[in-house]
Amino acid sequence: MPLTNWIDRVDGRDWETASEGTVRFALIGLGWWTVDFAIPAIERAERCETTVLVSSSTEKAQRIANEHDVPHGISYDAFHDGAAADTYDAIYIGTPNARHEAFATTAAELEKAVLCEKPIAADYDGAARMVDACADVPFMAAYRMQTDPIVRRARELLQDGIIGEPRYVAGTNAQPLLEMIPDPDQWRLNAALSGYGTSVMDLGIYVINTARFLLERDPIEASARMASIDEAFADVPDQWASFTLGFEDGISLVGTTSQDAQYETRLAITGSAGRLVLDPVFHGEVVMRIERGDATTTVEHDAVDGHREMEEEFAYFADRILSGEPIGPDGEHALVDMATLAAIHEAAERGEPVRIA
Amino acid sequence: MPLTNWIDRVDGRDWETASEGTVRFALIGLGWWTVDFAIPAIERAERCETTVLVSSSTEKAQRIANEHDVPHGISYDAFHDGAAADTYDAIYIGTPNARHEAFATTAAELEKAVLCEKPIAADYDGAARMVDACADVPFMAAYRMQTDPIVRRARELLQDGIIGEPRYVAGTNAQPLLEMIPDPDQWRLNAALSGYGTSVMDLGIYVINTARFLLERDPIEASARMASIDEAFADVPDQWASFTLGFEDGISLVGTTSQDAQYETRLAITGSAGRLVLDPVFHGEVVMRIERGDATTTVEHDAVDGHREMEEEFAYFADRILSGEPIGPDGEHALVDMATLAAIHEAAERGEPVRIA
Repeated sequence: MPLTNWIDRVDGRDWETASEGTVRFALIGLGWWTVDFAIPAIERAERCETTVLVSSSTEKAQRIANEHDVPHGISYDAFHDGAAADTYDAIYIGTPNARHEAFATTAAELEKAVLCEKPIAADYDGAARMVDACADVPFMAAYRMQTDPIVRRARELLQDGIIGEPRYVAGTNAQPLLEMIPDPDQWRLNAALSGYGTSVMDLGIYVINTARFLLERDPIEASARMASIDEAFADVPDQWASFTLGFEDGISLVGTTSQDAQYETRLAITGSAGRLVLDPVFHGEVVMRIERGDATTTVEHDAVDGHREMEEEFAYFADRILSGEPIGPDGEHALVDMATLAAIHEAAERGEPVRIA
Repeated sequence: MPLTNWIDRVDGRDWETASEGTVRFALIGLGWWTVDFAIPAIERAERCETTVLVSSSTEKAQRIANEHDVPHGISYDAFHDGAAADTYDAIYIGTPNARHEAFATTAAELEKAVLCEKPIAADYDGAARMVDACADVPFMAAYRMQTDPIVRRARELLQDGIIGEPRYVAGTNAQPLLEMIPDPDQWRLNAALSGYGTSVMDLGIYVINTARFLLERDPIEASARMASIDEAFADVPDQWASFTLGFEDGISLVGTTSQDAQYETRLAITGSAGRLVLDPVFHGEVVMRIERGDATTTVEHDAVDGHREMEEEFAYFADRILSGEPIGPDGEHALVDMATLAAIHEAAERGEPVRIA
């Protein structure tokens, strides 16, 4: 029975190639995501080990290193000076967007592999410099949707033609940031650290990149509307935003995003013969619903959550490094998102569509 | 317990004023919608009666009139000549868009009230002429969402602030038209009869008008993308389309629509403190989901379907005529949709945002 086989493989890995070796990680930037998600994910992931934690102060780094049985805790400055460089093979960058570049550049000079959170930089030029600097080391943008097993199954089903020809995508990603982190001075609301803005950069990027991954197409034009009305959002244009992307074959994407709205994550791809809906999708649990003609099929998997996604991401990255196979979301791939983010912000500012370079 | 009272009133009428009298209807255009939905709705609705059926031929009109115990069956020509004019008080127009105007104009000359299907005309100028011609008779655009009880409850909840400040709307309305009506020569695919196009005119209008009704705001700018690739859609630009509308207060609407895609109807309004989702919404059953903070509330009502919506629409229209109260979706209201439809099509053609007059 083919469905039985399919269900048993739902959370399977279609990329695993390495059979031995371990990649030792230095984790840079010890915010809640790194501590609560990256550290446990590396503990669970095969062929991965955390050997160094890097933070603004040696004291903080060593304290958290002690708490998690990590051998080394060093400061940002010490990292740039090459401290403990023989104890790690790769870095994971979880700092504010504008600070990624310096760490990636140092890592490349030290010939370390780089796994960098998205968006990979605060603006396109910074991203391009970083990708260029990392040209000779393995570089992966941390799009964990691309290693989520349900999302990978969705992509296979789309390749099989389960919705016919794709027509349009509707995606949304919103959260009440100031309820989650009640600090109006946080970096996501600071353009110097976040980049072009906050909602599209931090949340809309999930819509954009996951749609690219699922459609296997890149956007060619962007339109957008943005609004910021409250004092906490005075430094960024997009307290909330809507955007449209045009892809080849007449496919459109409409997206909505906000750092100041009721929580929601959803991506729906409608085609000539069906529809694939991921709801929720971007922050942990992924539920896939397929509508085809009069039939509806829903797929969920208890083991697939935010921790599993990060585990898969680290395991995949380590697998690529150990096997030497090409990395899926590489620097060039991430640059398309940076160009798209730039175009969306320019389109909102100019009030007209902007071609994506 | 307030919730008990609220639930008991879910399908209630907040507009009923007339206590006596009957409005006699002539139904014009005997397609499946008129026969399967309008005739039964009038039978069920208080203070409504069908006395005349009007079709392309006397024979067809009389045959269907006999089948439904309607006293008169007349031709379009006879209608324009004033036949049976003393046996009806109002007309319902269910013909192709481009043909609405002539019937409305004759009705106005005969001093009859007019209930006209949406969009009210094939283009803005035709709509403006029609509204002008009907200036001295009661005129209502047949936006049945506005008389659906669940949609009316949704509007009240939004007025109460259940989602805080509205930020953006995402709406979709799609169907596989050629599977539903397997005729490539049908009027909805013929620009001379349908107007600017097919998907936005016939389906997107639900997204646009329902959002206007719920937000109590009108759009001020439109952007859009359209594609037609198959032979059956050669005469219209929008086999599928996406569009964005800008409203005051920075509110955006993103819409997707297609006459050649997997069926879907959905409207979601996201706000600073909650989200109101109607899914499904546009073609019969309406299910309302309210997300506010961590709580989700779902409201559905077995008696509210496409027939009930049409019953409510006719009952409301008759109530307004008999009481002389103002009509909610009147000609001026419908003209805003026509201007919006025109702007969406112009925006798609020009590839840039278009202000809505």
